[in-house]
Amino acid sequence: MVKAAVLKAIGRLEVEDFPRPEIGSKALLMRVELCGICGTDIHLYHGRLQVPLPIIPGHEFVGRIEEIDEEARGLEVLGHELSEGDLITVVPGTNAFCGTCYHCRFTPQRPTLCQNRRVLGVNMSCREPPHLYGGWSEYVYVDAGHWWVYRVPEGMPPEVAVLTEPMAVSTRALERAFEPGFPTSDEGFSLGSTVVVQGVGPIGLLCVAAARLMGAGKIIAIDALDHRLRMAERMGADHIIDLKAYRTSEERVAEVERLTGGVGADVVIECAGVPSAFPEGIAMTRRGGRFIEVGHFTDPGGVEIRPHIICWKDIDILGCWAYPPAQFRKALKALEMGMREFPLEEFVTDRFRVEEAPEALRYAEQRRGLKVVITP
Amino acid sequence: MVKAAVLKAIGRLEVEDFPRPEIGSKALLMRVELCGICGTDIHLYHGRLQVPLPIIPGHEFVGRIEEIDEEARGLEVLGHELSEGDLITVVPGTNAFCGTCYHCRFTPQRPTLCQNRRVLGVNMSCREPPHLYGGWSEYVYVDAGHWWVYRVPEGMPPEVAVLTEPMAVSTRALERAFEPGFPTSDEGFSLGSTVVVQGVGPIGLLCVAAARLMGAGKIIAIDALDHRLRMAERMGADHIIDLKAYRTSEERVAEVERLTGGVGADVVIECAGVPSAFPEGIAMTRRGGRFIEVGHFTDPGGVEIRPHIICWKDIDILGCWAYPPAQFRKALKALEMGMREFPLEEFVTDRFRVEEAPEALRYAEQRRGLKVVITP
Amino acid sequence: MVKAAVLKAIGRLEVEDFPRPEIGSKALLMRVELCGICGTDIHLYHGRLQVPLPIIPGHEFVGRIEEIDEEARGLEVLGHELSEGDLITVVPGTNAFCGTCYHCRFTPQRPTLCQNRRVLGVNMSCREPPHLYGGWSEYVYVDAGHWWVYRVPEGMPPEVAVLTEPMAVSTRALERAFEPGFPTSDEGFSLGSTVVVQGVGPIGLLCVAAARLMGAGKIIAIDALDHRLRMAERMGADHIIDLKAYRTSEERVAEVERLTGGVGADVVIECAGVPSAFPEGIAMTRRGGRFIEVGHFTDPGGVEIRPHIICWKDIDILGCWAYPPAQFRKALKALEMGMREFPLEEFVTDRFRVEEAPEALRYAEQRRGLKVVITP
Amino acid sequence: MVKAAVLKAIGRLEVEDFPRPEIGSKALLMRVELCGICGTDIHLYHGRLQVPLPIIPGHEFVGRIEEIDEEARGLEVLGHELSEGDLITVVPGTNAFCGTCYHCRFTPQRPTLCQNRRVLGVNMSCREPPHLYGGWSEYVYVDAGHWWVYRVPEGMPPEVAVLTEPMAVSTRALERAFEPGFPTSDEGFSLGSTVVVQGVGPIGLLCVAAARLMGAGKIIAIDALDHRLRMAERMGADHIIDLKAYRTSEERVAEVERLTGGVGADVVIECAGVPSAFPEGIAMTRRGGRFIEVGHFTDPGGVEIRPHIICWKDIDILGCWAYPPAQFRKALKALEMGMREFPLEEFVTDRFRVEEAPEALRYAEQRRGLKVVITP
Repeated sequence: MVKAAVLKAIGRLEVEDFPRPEIGSKALLMRVELCGICGTDIHLYHGRLQVPLPIIPGHEFVGRIEEIDEEARGLEVLGHELSEGDLITVVPGTNAFCGTCYHCRFTPQRPTLCQNRRVLGVNMSCREPPHLYGGWSEYVYVDAGHWWVYRVPEGMPPEVAVLTEPMAVSTRALERAFEPGFPTSDEGFSLGSTVVVQGVGPIGLLCVAAARLMGAGKIIAIDALDHRLRMAERMGADHIIDLKAYRTSEERVAEVERLTGGVGADVVIECAGVPSAFPEGIAMTRRGGRFIEVGHFTDPGGVEIRPHIICWKDIDILGCWAYPPAQFRKALKALEMGMREFPLEEFVTDRFRVEEAPEALRYAEQRRGLKVVITP
Repeated sequence: MVKAAVLKAIGRLEVEDFPRPEIGSKALLMRVELCGICGTDIHLYHGRLQVPLPIIPGHEFVGRIEEIDEEARGLEVLGHELSEGDLITVVPGTNAFCGTCYHCRFTPQRPTLCQNRRVLGVNMSCREPPHLYGGWSEYVYVDAGHWWVYRVPEGMPPEVAVLTEPMAVSTRALERAFEPGFPTSDEGFSLGSTVVVQGVGPIGLLCVAAARLMGAGKIIAIDALDHRLRMAERMGADHIIDLKAYRTSEERVAEVERLTGGVGADVVIECAGVPSAFPEGIAMTRRGGRFIEVGHFTDPGGVEIRPHIICWKDIDILGCWAYPPAQFRKALKALEMGMREFPLEEFVTDRFRVEEAPEALRYAEQRRGLKVVITP
Repeated sequence: MVKAAVLKAIGRLEVEDFPRPEIGSKALLMRVELCGICGTDIHLYHGRLQVPLPIIPGHEFVGRIEEIDEEARGLEVLGHELSEGDLITVVPGTNAFCGTCYHCRFTPQRPTLCQNRRVLGVNMSCREPPHLYGGWSEYVYVDAGHWWVYRVPEGMPPEVAVLTEPMAVSTRALERAFEPGFPTSDEGFSLGSTVVVQGVGPIGLLCVAAARLMGAGKIIAIDALDHRLRMAERMGADHIIDLKAYRTSEERVAEVERLTGGVGADVVIECAGVPSAFPEGIAMTRRGGRFIEVGHFTDPGGVEIRPHIICWKDIDILGCWAYPPAQFRKALKALEMGMREFPLEEFVTDRFRVEEAPEALRYAEQRRGLKVVITP
Repeated sequence: MVKAAVLKAIGRLEVEDFPRPEIGSKALLMRVELCGICGTDIHLYHGRLQVPLPIIPGHEFVGRIEEIDEEARGLEVLGHELSEGDLITVVPGTNAFCGTCYHCRFTPQRPTLCQNRRVLGVNMSCREPPHLYGGWSEYVYVDAGHWWVYRVPEGMPPEVAVLTEPMAVSTRALERAFEPGFPTSDEGFSLGSTVVVQGVGPIGLLCVAAARLMGAGKIIAIDALDHRLRMAERMGADHIIDLKAYRTSEERVAEVERLTGGVGADVVIECAGVPSAFPEGIAMTRRGGRFIEVGHFTDPGGVEIRPHIICWKDIDILGCWAYPPAQFRKALKALEMGMREFPLEEFVTDRFRVEEAPEALRYAEQRRGLKVVITP
């Protein structure tokens, strides 16, 4: 039997035993090493996202191949041959997007807009066999024909590889800010740009690291929690703005102005997920700059803005929803490069067993650690 | 003596006589044929923009060269030789941007961001000689070394040429929505795109015309005034949404959805300048689409938005502030092409003499005509 | 039995009878109305492209649904319900790209780069049932699960709809030249741009039409054949350069310079497929402009260029290989708009029956007509 | 008197004494610390560029302010107050571009295309006072109103600061390869990209360093000289292709294919300036990738290419001519970041006095060192 934590109803998370599934065509069974807890999991628990329950939560996972169908051996994304024992990570959003909705047909470069997207650990019901469609479990059943499987690079420990999914979110946020590249001029992010990251939880911290790896000139991290701000500095932030010291929006905007010689930041990335961060981040963006909205994965409500500022600033405000499955390649590369410079292996601060999933969730909700993981 | 309308203080517009100026090096004296009244003029009158008074308002003007310095003859932007009697139009924002502010140095492709920009009819005091720095006047003094002078193409009447300045605003708004062009995919505006224009005053109407000329597939115009909606149809709008029939935001968004097969518009251009149009326009934009904010030249206040929608839609919201002086070339080209298809010469609905400037302003404020002009 | 022209070996084109196939799941049988002959077909005949023979050539086809599986009725790309008798056109390159090659995984916005792409009329062997994988036939068997089926818009005759495939090539070529849209400046194609089209066979003529529809300012068409140059003028070309009058490359480049005030063209589209057109087109491109290489679908050999010119001009040279299946939507839109302005229905100049395919091919090779078609 | 090396005629370089100039309005006199010798200087000597002789060569210089006009003190680009003794570097191409040519008016984001550009050390005759318009001299006269002056960052030695000009070339080359940033997908350069640098002289080596700083995944350097290849490895190249071991173009292309899993490189930067590198680099570029042509500043002749490859590969070939004056900010930033990781201070391998300029030129021509400099 396989033990897994099941979200049976809103606010009801219970451990359950499932039969170990038979391996179908192109499938593999992965023994979970680590599975991260993400803000999305907390939102799922509280019913802030509409999904068909019951589900096994957990979409940031890394593990080893326990059993694999012959036809799946050749399906590793980068062409490696897969074998039992290989450490792998899996893109939770299926690549087998429906193929017939408007977005699948007309915006293939934005596959996450598919109207029928299926995401492991998020909207895959565990009611029917093979059941094991989420990471808070001893095993995950992976249909490698529909989900992209990446082998973890040599020498990368599971503690780092478990960050692939959030790093995919963060690197795409940075890329949304890339300059077009045609005329050379200060458009968006490029070498030497000043980047503000609002909110340095895991996504924000990985944005800091990605910005550093991509040649940012000056990185300013904003948060209220000391352990996050300390980590931001270790990930490459040049300046921190502590919400406890800069208590008003005006003070924080003034500090960004001071740090940028009165101009404002080239790029601001909103990772706080708090509505008030939105107009504050726009106020921090220089005229002609870019503001990336990646933190509001769920809807915590509204905020007042003044459209005139957006017109007058001639800025770009770019929403950033998830990432295409190809992003995992960049995320793994970023982690590989980042391991040499940043304490990525210290990201995982707290571990809980599958049976402790309810406690783990409560703990994560208190934001005391950085990345809280479930490990069997 | 030269008669001109002078804004002496907020709310105080008076006609005054100035001495006819001597022509300096690289300068010319233009006899005004027509000068449009723009929303900005109304805002200036009410003190909603900070400028050093007194000024002669009027930045949308067309006229004939009365007198010209020898050195100015070779300064026409497109290389035409200038002579007395030539019909010309002038970019009101100086090209002699300061050259030393952050934006002049680092974002030369966005010259309107210059922190020291001087704009004829807007922030050029008429206190000192040669005084005539605005279009509500019999003559305008133009230093062709600092302001770009374009000769009006053969066969274009002043009634059409007077639209060059608003057409520059409108064409840049469309261009902000252009797709990057590298991979071919549905990014932003291209051939066949669905475009919504919110608010079809002069700027919005010219956005409709520009979208038509650039190959839009379906154009939807929104407004409350019948004479504007009728004109929008004549300018190429395929559908109109009359605010008198679709009274709530939900109804209007639903109508755009219906007209786009449930997907939403590829591009939405906000030309209403009303805060509530901002979230409404975002709601009309399809996932992955573009929203252009061009209507809020001044600040009529705030509005509540939900940042989650922007994240979830993965959209681009692009502020659009004025236009570079090179835009006049495209604007003149668009008017030239547009004359063959649209009733551009009917745009000017009402004419007032310089002495009637106060009445003209009040009339324009009531939005009864389309383009109200001052003509000596 | 179904009559079709079969390319059995290089240079051996014969008419053959095939059994009428059973309709499988998601499939339909289309009765061909018209199928264009394209340069690719001539190259196939001469063995210049490596494909597994025998094949039924013909990838530009339009026809009516004769029989359709229930599951295929809902698969029309734009959501129309398909029925017997509907006029349709089909993207010849499968959308069921392999999904596992490098390009399918990492460049989904360029699906034509798939290393395992299957194209009706090009590389689909007709050896096995259902055999009917090409348009020089009475019927084509279309698996609507793997190929995109578009219903032809109301009121568009088959003579125009048969141009959808070449119009897809031409519109993508134009879009490769689009400006990035972020800063407003003269980058690539936009409203008012000067466009040179080298070679106005069908692809070049449709580039002229597309440029016109998208707001080009001045279009210059180059060719040696009078009937093509006349048609180019009717499609919207402002100037023609007749190779019989401008005999040397230097003369033609000088003429483009003259027509562009000494600057050169903003965009040059190479549709001649002749190596010497490549350096000549680069010479016609202004500094900072764009050159699109769309004409060399096959390899007629090499030509000398000077890399210094490319460096010095700071230009973009963009290869343009086929189009994604979504391009047909734009192509159909362009044809719909174009029908109102251009004599698109005169494009088809010569018709041959399936049995006459060998003669048709020889005729097309002589370039006497514009679009030569096969019609059962 | 001021000693300077003067190119009096093609092939005739002589040392001459000039009077020390008076400081005019907005000007300063810089005492040269180091001035690099660049390939352009060699081309000038041999008459391969058309410039009005006599000139003082030398456009890559760094030095200290000896004397400064009051009005120049506030003209430092980034807002620092300038004083006597400050270490500065100067953009050799004037920012006071003419303002009236086509490119100044319509492509301000590409200021190097100005048809009347004046470049210190390149096309500024030293015939008239103040004479000192080039870096192979004890002093350079800098009009800070027309040329951009940057203060060298604290802690950066002249040996590193002298690389600012070539680093500006190299960083712009990388930026030409940037992906547009709108949809996330593998377009051009981004985090993790594979970059090939053909030719690792100073420009190529700095491209390697810039690629590393901007997050390249795999960098492959190609050259024939051992000391360059060793330096490339120290600058961050992951692989080298030694022309002595891979003797044919086919072997080198095969090696790039092997190193990229059969796909080809995402970005290839041609820094060799040898015509045959052009088609070879295109052959190394993956389908859908980008090739940057930066090495052919002068014209060493032609080479045969096959246009079909460019069409079929759907690639972007981007010419890269010089850099805008704003690029120096990024170059200085890149050098500042690079100093922490790479042996930039070892770049300058050989020093010659002004009197030894002829020998220095001959030595540089032999490519024995890396960066050869003139120092008074």
